[in-house]
Amino acid sequence: MVLRGANLARKRFPQIDFLVFGQESEVAPILNRMKRLKQVTTLVHCDGVVSDSEKPSVAVRSGRNSSMHRAIRAVRDGEAAGCVSAGNTGALMAMAKMALKTLPTIDRPAIASFFPTLRGESVMLDLGANVQCTAQNLVDFAIMGNAFSRTVLGTQEPSVGLLNVGAEERKGHEALWDARAQLDRLEMPGRFHGFIEGDDIAKGTVDVIVTDGFTGNVALKTAEGTAKLMGVYLQRTFKSSIFAQLGYLLARRAMHKLRKRTDPRRYNGAIFLGLNGITVKSHGGTDAIGFANAIGVAVDMAREGFMDRIRTDLAQIRSNPTNTRAAAV
Amino acid sequence: MVLRGANLARKRFPQIDFLVFGQESEVAPILNRMKRLKQVTTLVHCDGVVSDSEKPSVAVRSGRNSSMHRAIRAVRDGEAAGCVSAGNTGALMAMAKMALKTLPTIDRPAIASFFPTLRGESVMLDLGANVQCTAQNLVDFAIMGNAFSRTVLGTQEPSVGLLNVGAEERKGHEALWDARAQLDRLEMPGRFHGFIEGDDIAKGTVDVIVTDGFTGNVALKTAEGTAKLMGVYLQRTFKSSIFAQLGYLLARRAMHKLRKRTDPRRYNGAIFLGLNGITVKSHGGTDAIGFANAIGVAVDMAREGFMDRIRTDLAQIRSNPTNTRAAAV
Repeated sequence: MVLRGANLARKRFPQIDFLVFGQESEVAPILNRMKRLKQVTTLVHCDGVVSDSEKPSVAVRSGRNSSMHRAIRAVRDGEAAGCVSAGNTGALMAMAKMALKTLPTIDRPAIASFFPTLRGESVMLDLGANVQCTAQNLVDFAIMGNAFSRTVLGTQEPSVGLLNVGAEERKGHEALWDARAQLDRLEMPGRFHGFIEGDDIAKGTVDVIVTDGFTGNVALKTAEGTAKLMGVYLQRTFKSSIFAQLGYLLARRAMHKLRKRTDPRRYNGAIFLGLNGITVKSHGGTDAIGFANAIGVAVDMAREGFMDRIRTDLAQIRSNPTNTRAAAV
Repeated sequence: MVLRGANLARKRFPQIDFLVFGQESEVAPILNRMKRLKQVTTLVHCDGVVSDSEKPSVAVRSGRNSSMHRAIRAVRDGEAAGCVSAGNTGALMAMAKMALKTLPTIDRPAIASFFPTLRGESVMLDLGANVQCTAQNLVDFAIMGNAFSRTVLGTQEPSVGLLNVGAEERKGHEALWDARAQLDRLEMPGRFHGFIEGDDIAKGTVDVIVTDGFTGNVALKTAEGTAKLMGVYLQRTFKSSIFAQLGYLLARRAMHKLRKRTDPRRYNGAIFLGLNGITVKSHGGTDAIGFANAIGVAVDMAREGFMDRIRTDLAQIRSNPTNTRAAAV
């Protein structure tokens, strides 16, 4: 799946080449069958592998020769522009945090991803790296999501919203109130919208949705589950009568486009934001198309100079006297 | 909307009659035009009204003559089997809590609602009454949701799941770990499933989904927003070509059924669980069909003897020595 995904990505981005980390005896035979990919790929043999069930803390300690750790180190050492993995999320985050370190002033990295909306695409973070978040974490996520939206999605003036259970000032909990007060005063490109609610995600009310990792993870998976349910309902509907079946035959091409539009593989590739380097996590259960999309996310970030953009943003925000006052309040 | 909803409910449930609380000068002219409804309705004039923007604390203190408070008192005083309101949720909950009081051993009431799933319907709580919850609150919600599922949905042995960001034991936060440990030991009808994730809601993995009010509210609204987005995508798809348009014409009847099946009005009616009396909150923006469904929820609860069932359940759980030990751990 990984190599076939890389092969698809190679066609889409002819300018990139690959470092592939893994067991040579397993990887080489497959790679030998993909001549064009092989020409742009360096295979780096690694003895170890991090299993999906391994605890992050254990993986970090004992996994220094694993393919995962080697791939992250290649980013740290400037050998790779970014790392893409479909492995154990917790281990990948723990290793990336340790090897790449967080950006200046950023306490905690977050996991971000795209969401389809009525207006196009939004980015949401955190999706599970931090179960509990302070106001400062949420403010950091807003800054990082903002930079990501401008760089990778090309949004000129991104609007940022804090996910809550109501739009009024005293809804939710204290970390949200404090984060809102800080973001109200923070001078950054774009616009702070205030609180949003769950239905604002799909509406596309804002370009960047900021939330703690618990809520974000539940919202992401609830949306995925609901979309799948609607898909099954639609299938059943088209099978429910002979007329509906004929109708489907006529609308088939359009329905195919809809399926493509809502294909979860299209949104594959969760970004670790807040680290000194690009790391993208692919869904473990995806296929070559999905993995190629995750590679595409890393390529876009590298090509659009995301790391420079976020470093500049953070430096500007820190040096702005208004923001220093805001942070001190 | 309320009176037209009551009129629809009257047709569906010929055995019930209504107490309508409101400004006589406004309600009477409408009621006079609905002869059959008028025959089974007592109009109780109330001077006050709780506005949607009023703070719950203010409404509780100054709203004793409001239609909302009078309706709840009618439940408390045994004049009504249940109360249905489309008004201010926070005020309704605060008034219901004060007038009806919580059930023995229940510390906090919760808001529950139905969710459509691949397997049928599940019930989820809390949907917003309690932003933060202790382990004990979550255990109480599990017991209440279980009783609700058996009584109103007729599930023989409901399965109960705790909404989390992963199925493994140490995922999420401490209140969830403690609640899981307590529920593992609690002897109650049905089966405790353990942790579930956001996509399990629509899958119908469990009959009862237990969560804190913050997460539940975000999940509910995210699901609603996603369903709406999918509906818009589908509409656009059917309009995207002449073949798709013809296809829609053929599949129209089936699509109409699908729209009915996913109509949010069908799931209108959030239940306040944990109080000494039946209170159902209708969506404020619904229409007569939606309001009639909310009345239907209250009727089902009253008819199936929900209050007796939940009192019996709580007494049995308290008197079971295994459970007393479980609670003491």
